[in-house]
Amino acid sequence: MSDSNKKIIAVIGGFPCSPEEGRLAEIVGRELAKKGAILICGGEGGVMEAACKGAQSAGGITIGILPGDGRQTANPYVSVPIVTGLGAARNIVIIKSAQAVIAIGGGYGTLSEIGFALKVNVPIIGLNTWSLSRNNQTDNSIILTEDPAAAAELAIELAAG
Amino acid sequence: MSDSNKKIIAVIGGFPCSPEEGRLAEIVGRELAKKGAILICGGEGGVMEAACKGAQSAGGITIGILPGDGRQTANPYVSVPIVTGLGAARNIVIIKSAQAVIAIGGGYGTLSEIGFALKVNVPIIGLNTWSLSRNNQTDNSIILTEDPAAAAELAIELAAG
Amino acid sequence: MSDSNKKIIAVIGGFPCSPEEGRLAEIVGRELAKKGAILICGGEGGVMEAACKGAQSAGGITIGILPGDGRQTANPYVSVPIVTGLGAARNIVIIKSAQAVIAIGGGYGTLSEIGFALKVNVPIIGLNTWSLSRNNQTDNSIILTEDPAAAAELAIELAAG
Amino acid sequence: MSDSNKKIIAVIGGFPCSPEEGRLAEIVGRELAKKGAILICGGEGGVMEAACKGAQSAGGITIGILPGDGRQTANPYVSVPIVTGLGAARNIVIIKSAQAVIAIGGGYGTLSEIGFALKVNVPIIGLNTWSLSRNNQTDNSIILTEDPAAAAELAIELAAG
Repeated sequence: MSDSNKKIIAVIGGFPCSPEEGRLAEIVGRELAKKGAILICGGEGGVMEAACKGAQSAGGITIGILPGDGRQTANPYVSVPIVTGLGAARNIVIIKSAQAVIAIGGGYGTLSEIGFALKVNVPIIGLNTWSLSRNNQTDNSIILTEDPAAAAELAIELAAG
Repeated sequence: MSDSNKKIIAVIGGFPCSPEEGRLAEIVGRELAKKGAILICGGEGGVMEAACKGAQSAGGITIGILPGDGRQTANPYVSVPIVTGLGAARNIVIIKSAQAVIAIGGGYGTLSEIGFALKVNVPIIGLNTWSLSRNNQTDNSIILTEDPAAAAELAIELAAG
Repeated sequence: MSDSNKKIIAVIGGFPCSPEEGRLAEIVGRELAKKGAILICGGEGGVMEAACKGAQSAGGITIGILPGDGRQTANPYVSVPIVTGLGAARNIVIIKSAQAVIAIGGGYGTLSEIGFALKVNVPIIGLNTWSLSRNNQTDNSIILTEDPAAAAELAIELAAG
Repeated sequence: MSDSNKKIIAVIGGFPCSPEEGRLAEIVGRELAKKGAILICGGEGGVMEAACKGAQSAGGITIGILPGDGRQTANPYVSVPIVTGLGAARNIVIIKSAQAVIAIGGGYGTLSEIGFALKVNVPIIGLNTWSLSRNNQTDNSIILTEDPAAAAELAIELAAG
């Protein structure tokens, strides 16, 4: 399979993250790489680093879309650092480049990315993350699961064309 | 009062919007301008246009941060069209430039902006908008109100330095 | 004349700048404001600050498109600080928003903005700035002048619709 | 050699391009890949496509930083399409991510990127491209060559850390 046929899957979440979130992210990264997907993320620490570590352990390509001006801020498991200097606007590049997104835990930055993924119709799978309601009606657009291997499998299956 | 001492307040929300959302946005825009604030928004239709219309009716300055490549997409009540060509990344410019944000109704794009405002600690006031919970715990960071004049007053009061 | 009919003219150039460049920029800013134009610039020091100072002395609106994350970096003559957090990508917002551009002196950043203005067909007027050739052929797309008042007048005249 | 130790080299230039520029770009891409570098470019046609074609023929990774909202605009030789939706601001991401830049031919957009590369001190090598002067003094910051294989070799040698 040439690289250009590989699915590109984003993993988003907190930096720093809890040990449990890190454990989930590492499994997700490893399972994505095993199934031949390219991992895209923000390239920094926390959930991003754990996911890259998992992906690299299975020989996967890991793309880090960095917010600042130097490649030095990439975690050591990023194989291709993309230096944007765009600050938080880099989050939009991550979501637009992904064919599916897996959100793990996360704070308001992750919430912002989830909202953007829903807006542009990229499938999004959540592990221990936000729930949403609007005018007192629950919104079920985030696909919730507690199993990281299932999340990886589902992301690849749903990956938009 | 010189322009440089004026507060800059963002109004965000759906495009298109419901008549009720439009009514709320127009009042918010008018009240902001009456109190000497500069309105910043995405410069397009729906909630954005209604807010600009209200602000212009009271003689206010209205800044439209446009996503596309031409000033022609600005609604007719934008006094200063800023043409970004950045697509959705322009939402981040709106939030970063605002000293407080008022969200009116809104879909996933508005949710994404709310998440970003919370991340960067810009005060956010909601009229008929999203509610949030995380891991089954309600998050009360959005200040909810049903009174558009009160929303405008509160935004100016809370406007960060 | 309502704000929405005002021409938006960019002034770009070095930060820091020479005293002579500052003198030219201040005259340009003042003449633009006298003729009712809105000044847009990067909002920082050097040529940008001198142009804003001149514009404000004649009662003009000055828009500063800031690269960083805080409004505190705006020079004191910016009436509307726009906070982008986009770093150098904010230069593109300045050029896209302008109906004509005046370049005064300037280094490689200014050269980059001149190239972009020429690419998107925004008229560009140069005072003491770059000259260009490609494959040994001179490129005369920058309108060169040494008179700052003439530059302001020409910019407003050429301002694209 | 793991991916994370590979040099990332940008190739920039016109779209469309002349047959001679395409020939040069294809050799540059092939030589970069042979020497183990990752190619980064705008991911579209012209010089970008020719460089990707050359790199892929030698088994290299090719990153395309796309301006629009869809991966469909990538040329067929891009192995990792990054979808930015940022328009021309994506050029800045290309330059910031590169450890050296090779410019081949090119119009005003390429001139803008050259200016930006010089501003941020990324080494830049030119084949049939712009020459610069400022206030009637020639600027020799672009390293000019007519040999595409030499350009590739020099880019890797100069690639900033």
